[in-house]
Amino acid sequence: MAEKKLVEAITSMSEDFAQWYTDVVKKAELIDYSNVKGCMVIKPAGYAIWENIQRQLDERFKAAGVENVYMPMFIPESLLQKEKDHVEGFAPEVAWVTHGGLNPLQERMCVRPTSETLFCDFYKGDIHSYRDLPRVYNQWCSVVRWEKETRPFLRSREFLWQEGHTAHATAAQAQERTEQMLNVYADFCEEVLAIPVVKGRKTEKEKFAGAEATYTIEALMHDGKALQSGTSHNFGDGFAKAFGIQFTDRDNQLKYVHQTSWGMSTRIIGAIIMVHGDDSGLVLPPRIAPTQVMIIPIQQKKEGVLAKAFELQEKLGAFRVKVDDSDKSPGWKFSEQEMRGIPLRVEIGPKDIEAGKCVICRRDNGEKLETALDQLEETVGRLLDQVQNDLLAKARRHLEEHTFTATSREEFEQIFSEKSGFVKAMWCGEQSCEEEVKDSLGVTSRCMPFEQEQLSDTCACCGRPARKMVYWGKAY
Amino acid sequence: MAEKKLVEAITSMSEDFAQWYTDVVKKAELIDYSNVKGCMVIKPAGYAIWENIQRQLDERFKAAGVENVYMPMFIPESLLQKEKDHVEGFAPEVAWVTHGGLNPLQERMCVRPTSETLFCDFYKGDIHSYRDLPRVYNQWCSVVRWEKETRPFLRSREFLWQEGHTAHATAAQAQERTEQMLNVYADFCEEVLAIPVVKGRKTEKEKFAGAEATYTIEALMHDGKALQSGTSHNFGDGFAKAFGIQFTDRDNQLKYVHQTSWGMSTRIIGAIIMVHGDDSGLVLPPRIAPTQVMIIPIQQKKEGVLAKAFELQEKLGAFRVKVDDSDKSPGWKFSEQEMRGIPLRVEIGPKDIEAGKCVICRRDNGEKLETALDQLEETVGRLLDQVQNDLLAKARRHLEEHTFTATSREEFEQIFSEKSGFVKAMWCGEQSCEEEVKDSLGVTSRCMPFEQEQLSDTCACCGRPARKMVYWGKAY
Repeated sequence: MAEKKLVEAITSMSEDFAQWYTDVVKKAELIDYSNVKGCMVIKPAGYAIWENIQRQLDERFKAAGVENVYMPMFIPESLLQKEKDHVEGFAPEVAWVTHGGLNPLQERMCVRPTSETLFCDFYKGDIHSYRDLPRVYNQWCSVVRWEKETRPFLRSREFLWQEGHTAHATAAQAQERTEQMLNVYADFCEEVLAIPVVKGRKTEKEKFAGAEATYTIEALMHDGKALQSGTSHNFGDGFAKAFGIQFTDRDNQLKYVHQTSWGMSTRIIGAIIMVHGDDSGLVLPPRIAPTQVMIIPIQQKKEGVLAKAFELQEKLGAFRVKVDDSDKSPGWKFSEQEMRGIPLRVEIGPKDIEAGKCVICRRDNGEKLETALDQLEETVGRLLDQVQNDLLAKARRHLEEHTFTATSREEFEQIFSEKSGFVKAMWCGEQSCEEEVKDSLGVTSRCMPFEQEQLSDTCACCGRPARKMVYWGKAY
Repeated sequence: MAEKKLVEAITSMSEDFAQWYTDVVKKAELIDYSNVKGCMVIKPAGYAIWENIQRQLDERFKAAGVENVYMPMFIPESLLQKEKDHVEGFAPEVAWVTHGGLNPLQERMCVRPTSETLFCDFYKGDIHSYRDLPRVYNQWCSVVRWEKETRPFLRSREFLWQEGHTAHATAAQAQERTEQMLNVYADFCEEVLAIPVVKGRKTEKEKFAGAEATYTIEALMHDGKALQSGTSHNFGDGFAKAFGIQFTDRDNQLKYVHQTSWGMSTRIIGAIIMVHGDDSGLVLPPRIAPTQVMIIPIQQKKEGVLAKAFELQEKLGAFRVKVDDSDKSPGWKFSEQEMRGIPLRVEIGPKDIEAGKCVICRRDNGEKLETALDQLEETVGRLLDQVQNDLLAKARRHLEEHTFTATSREEFEQIFSEKSGFVKAMWCGEQSCEEEVKDSLGVTSRCMPFEQEQLSDTCACCGRPARKMVYWGKAY
């Protein structure tokens, strides 16, 4: 019965993309809903993806001089209120702890929605001299935001993430770190997750509460909607002034530090699903797949078949390989492996053994090929690389084919009514214009990309003089 | 100035052990107190130890068939109340969330003090058939217990840990898993942390709230006090009955599952400090040390010295090695390396370079030896192994020398008034006796060890007929 549920047809993407997404996260066993409203249970198949993300992102962090720490999960109300914009942005959506044990607290505390205030409070006591700078700290933790509507991975009341918080002696160094970490995210997405992104700066309206500037990587999902996939903020000395974080510089002057923060969350798993998945389920890029190869024995009760399957597993020790020796039929096993997005399937039966070969099937495009058993390791290595590259190329093609240009309001509206994807258009820079577009079309500015083009002289939305090229889109 | 604070003399262990401990955690920069009462900031040097613990313990878990997951951090009050003993044990010490954003919650929720109830709630919907068993899940997370008195690592309102939660078809399988995980903890402590432990079962009085049986590993600190370092609980089918977790067995009968849970926390870092540390600061076993070797250049401004130091670092790429090229004096650097517990120090100066040799100094016993540069890698490898083994041997000797035997109340009281350590003694098995001993002497039963001896026929505390040998001690 458990088998049946899994391989039962899922809703097709073209029929109902939102339902397809929900079917995949459930049937690939990534998450389960919990009885704690708005919170999810991340199951082994989902958490193993997060572990791979953590490991590979953390390696890149460490290579960039980042040190990991751990801050308390609670923020006293008075601390949250120290930076005006920040508290306005977050206070309406935090969970409040009011009692410890049987007693009411003297001051209520929220569960961290993000930890700028805690890091600032710590840095205030920890940083004294230019010798103490830079501080490049990060933590892996969970945070809570009291969202009204939730969706697995994309928006939930509690989610897992990392948050980096740095302090620097100069504005230039803070800006450099902000961009450096954005590039770490962008490279990670492309090289590991096979997700191409657009890099740019958020408008004033869309920037983080308390930031001087917010930078973002925006990815395009299969349905043409955008997903903000990682952000990096430059705070200037705003938080430092609110918290009084000063240091004695080489010139003996007391100065405020300049700060940054940057984060990526379990939300990115939603991006993996919606960029690569298809009507048979999940499709995982090999570099992030917890299992890269599933060996499925055919006629496994025949003598020597299972033994050969395990022998091949051992031979493929350089990769993450499993053997499905359950008592399900090969057909079920194929469907399961497809639903779970395992990049390669190796089929091995009595006839294959006799002929000294096996069949390999690619999850991403269904291609099958035969390989001699003594070339299996080499073939698997080559195919995994190819799948990884092909997934990135395909996603890049999709991004290009769904990025449009508009130079007038008519064009802008027509594209968003007929097509789905990013629209590049010139913008006047006025927040009122952005708000009008959002209210009337449900479209938001995703970013002002680093790679600017001069598409026209006037704002495509309102006709005023153009100041910046913006990527617009409907977003998750 | 920052240097001065660090290498300033710390309180000696013999003068005031508690103050020595506080000095070490502060001056080795493992933690900092935070403005969130009872919560600590784990700084890079402390968190790097926890990362090494996580990595190596998690490897052992995976080899034992454990899968990682993530459950919500909140427990609705009604869920916490489902198992009677469990709620009585934990309700008085949880933090309560009563508001989400601007609105009061319909039902208040606590921040998890431990997650039995959440796993049970999940398993209830997830387990249907014997095919779904066993479930061997674990999560790495933080938990909150509203303690009144707190000490860094040993007792804080929030701490990091892992908690394993399993479900099995039979009582025998649950018991087997309970013992298996206790052994994983014991082996990890001995092989990685160089901490020998006593394995045994907790008395009824000391067992976990809701458990049928609790097993523990108990370590002896340098001051002769015990530290409970890891626990493994067998719940039988108690939680399963409270939550209704049933499965259809092979015989088509509906049965309750049998469950276990097991945990190890950041508390174990307190054990590392108090087992191995000395009057110069922290002493880290090589297998857990974030930095295993610190290379300290002598006369580093002379041409070629720094270059040689970095060349040696590269040569030692198989180990975790740093070069201290700061502008502090070598003396300061030595003290810092000692305070931070880095197992080996390599000193390299112009004369050494000329002679093709360097000096290596062991942190654990201060021994210095010269080695030819072309044998450095081999020597460092050998020394790290030796330090690891010697630390375990020393800790084992300390445990043996501070484990006493009492066969009468006089002897029992005399030992606890004159000496410090474990006392092995026969016990009647009565909770009233245990309580009397705790009230009058401040001594608690640590465990009924697996390795039982028949020391006398009567209880050393009350004179009634003896039933079990118990390890007694004063505990953190």
